[in-house]
Amino acid sequence: MKLSQRITHLTKDGGDGWDVFYRARRMILDGYAVTELTIGEHDIRTDPTILEAMDLSARQGHTGYAMVPGTDLLRDTVAARLQARTGVPTTRNNVLITPGGQAGLFAAHVAVCDPGDVGLYLDPFYATYPGTIRGAGAVARAIQTTAEDAFQPRANLIDAAADGAVSLLINTPNNPTGAVYGRETLDGIAKLCRNRDLWLISDEVYDTQVWDGQHISPRTLPGMSERTLVVGSMSKSHAMTGSRCGWVVGPEEVIAHLINLATHTTYGVPGFIQDAASFALNAGHALEEQIALPFRKRRALAVEILNAQNTVGLVPAQGAMYLMLDIRATGLSGEEFANALLDTHSIAVMPGESFGSAAAGHIRVAMTIDDERFCAALSTICTFAADLAKKQVAAT
Amino acid sequence: MKLSQRITHLTKDGGDGWDVFYRARRMILDGYAVTELTIGEHDIRTDPTILEAMDLSARQGHTGYAMVPGTDLLRDTVAARLQARTGVPTTRNNVLITPGGQAGLFAAHVAVCDPGDVGLYLDPFYATYPGTIRGAGAVARAIQTTAEDAFQPRANLIDAAADGAVSLLINTPNNPTGAVYGRETLDGIAKLCRNRDLWLISDEVYDTQVWDGQHISPRTLPGMSERTLVVGSMSKSHAMTGSRCGWVVGPEEVIAHLINLATHTTYGVPGFIQDAASFALNAGHALEEQIALPFRKRRALAVEILNAQNTVGLVPAQGAMYLMLDIRATGLSGEEFANALLDTHSIAVMPGESFGSAAAGHIRVAMTIDDERFCAALSTICTFAADLAKKQVAAT
Repeated sequence: MKLSQRITHLTKDGGDGWDVFYRARRMILDGYAVTELTIGEHDIRTDPTILEAMDLSARQGHTGYAMVPGTDLLRDTVAARLQARTGVPTTRNNVLITPGGQAGLFAAHVAVCDPGDVGLYLDPFYATYPGTIRGAGAVARAIQTTAEDAFQPRANLIDAAADGAVSLLINTPNNPTGAVYGRETLDGIAKLCRNRDLWLISDEVYDTQVWDGQHISPRTLPGMSERTLVVGSMSKSHAMTGSRCGWVVGPEEVIAHLINLATHTTYGVPGFIQDAASFALNAGHALEEQIALPFRKRRALAVEILNAQNTVGLVPAQGAMYLMLDIRATGLSGEEFANALLDTHSIAVMPGESFGSAAAGHIRVAMTIDDERFCAALSTICTFAADLAKKQVAAT
Repeated sequence: MKLSQRITHLTKDGGDGWDVFYRARRMILDGYAVTELTIGEHDIRTDPTILEAMDLSARQGHTGYAMVPGTDLLRDTVAARLQARTGVPTTRNNVLITPGGQAGLFAAHVAVCDPGDVGLYLDPFYATYPGTIRGAGAVARAIQTTAEDAFQPRANLIDAAADGAVSLLINTPNNPTGAVYGRETLDGIAKLCRNRDLWLISDEVYDTQVWDGQHISPRTLPGMSERTLVVGSMSKSHAMTGSRCGWVVGPEEVIAHLINLATHTTYGVPGFIQDAASFALNAGHALEEQIALPFRKRRALAVEILNAQNTVGLVPAQGAMYLMLDIRATGLSGEEFANALLDTHSIAVMPGESFGSAAAGHIRVAMTIDDERFCAALSTICTFAADLAKKQVAAT
């Protein structure tokens, strides 16, 4: 039986580097003690007070169909939060609640891309990006950024690749690079989007995890609120990854169409989860800070460790829960390095190549284990890299 | 800013009959006492024991990312249940857990339809069907069934409309008609699918609500397990509409691709909801019977009331939580009747026209209020129809 081209051609990139990830998974299942630094997931669980709010909502009877666009309460809460953070007037009519940020990314692309249209994205990229664009029926086109530019995208390079494009997908703070896009970067992107009449799909799920500089939402820039779809989520900001609760924020007429799409693709998000999310967001900034704190602390510890050596380079770790480390001095690819590290020290990290070609010769380290083990693992990585680099020098 | 053709052309059918639905909603919001018989939702809430299982799972820490295909436990449970009910060998590798049945319908169509392919469906239809097919990028083509055939589809009529088609979507027990497809009907459909090399997408979310005859899954018929995608859900069988937990069951290689699609469109279903669903399914047949019982009882009461008059015709109510009533003797369309009924008696029902042209001159009555009010409303509908029919006869 024949399947659709769309589903059979969904993924064809970044596949190489994932072998090490699956190998680490298998080792863990087989009982090996692996230091797991691959996954973007907190080492804490969802806060008990949030789970209590969820249970209360369910027991009070919020177990029937919720309104497809989202509950009034959560839509209002998300709108108020975004308006407070950005100054851009935002109401519930600008908000669709989605079953997670990934569903928001997909819906946003379906809303703006027709089959054959080009959807742009930046390399290195979060693993699902090209498949999400293809899943919407569009052509996924990557634009390279470089380690030398600290992976900040350059508008002129995007412009040169934008023929046939209807959308550009960006992510700041960035996974996997840890970059936070500066005002100059975003001004350039905004100007390009206006000139080229592009939709900007702005994945801002790490917006509470900024260690250096500040998060700027491109929706705040001149002429951008009418062409920007912001994707957000409870996952990273509130350690609610498993609750699958996110949103798309954009112009009212787009949200109206996205609600219609949601009716035909997901039919809403559980009401008790939305009530839990509303509770969590209304708990305010302190809770978000508390959830971001371990990563802020580990990032500072990591900078110390990395400053004390000169083999492994750190791409400025400005935000998100990852470090992007340059291991090119070892002479190995990211994939070779990650495999060797897993074999010799049972430490699992993601090869940069898993996220596209621009991060080749790098590894991504998730800061998602306790401080002590994290520091020990990072020191081991540095020593391991230094030994490899020495051998490399000796051999040449 | 230009939106995609796909999203702006998602819905263009069945729109007429929905005015009465939204009018009833507004009346309720404005404080009027409306007898609400429009919605396919139980008048009970999710069972407290199921909510307890959910809360326990969440508190035990199942709040992180669940595996995208679904938890092993729920996939195994769904597979075992389907195998027990149908005899078709089924393992977890035949099962993808989805955030609700609607997400399963959408994913199944994305898996088999490319842009421009035709996806067939039957009229009358559940409101989201044509938009779901269009959302997948395909051309939605309706095939009429008739009240005179008790809305059983005829294979020769489907065959005559099948040029360019890659899939056929069916739903038994059927919403909105209450029909349960018999063996002859399904044998004809199965033969057609084999001859035409069509995928059969079989929406079986009402499979625990059969009042007359028995539910036959077409996946059990010769040569059909390799070309059938069964969509199921916890919504109707376990009064878990708001939990958004469903599945697609199909050939292993299709499920493998659907898992990849899920990675790029939804990224899994909350683990604590999956644990609640596993608990509910493992509670066994008695719980399902208990949840179906009120509808079984009301259907029997309705048959009594309708047998005692001869204006309103009942399409055999074999399954699901609805009655499809023929009100053509009144001389009104379903929409006119429903509007008049709402205006004069504050009873809200769905016009048959909301579900396509084949159910014109009918109304759909959801059996979703307590027995006493339900019987009173049905009696009022009959008296109201009889008065209209008398006037109609007098006028001609």
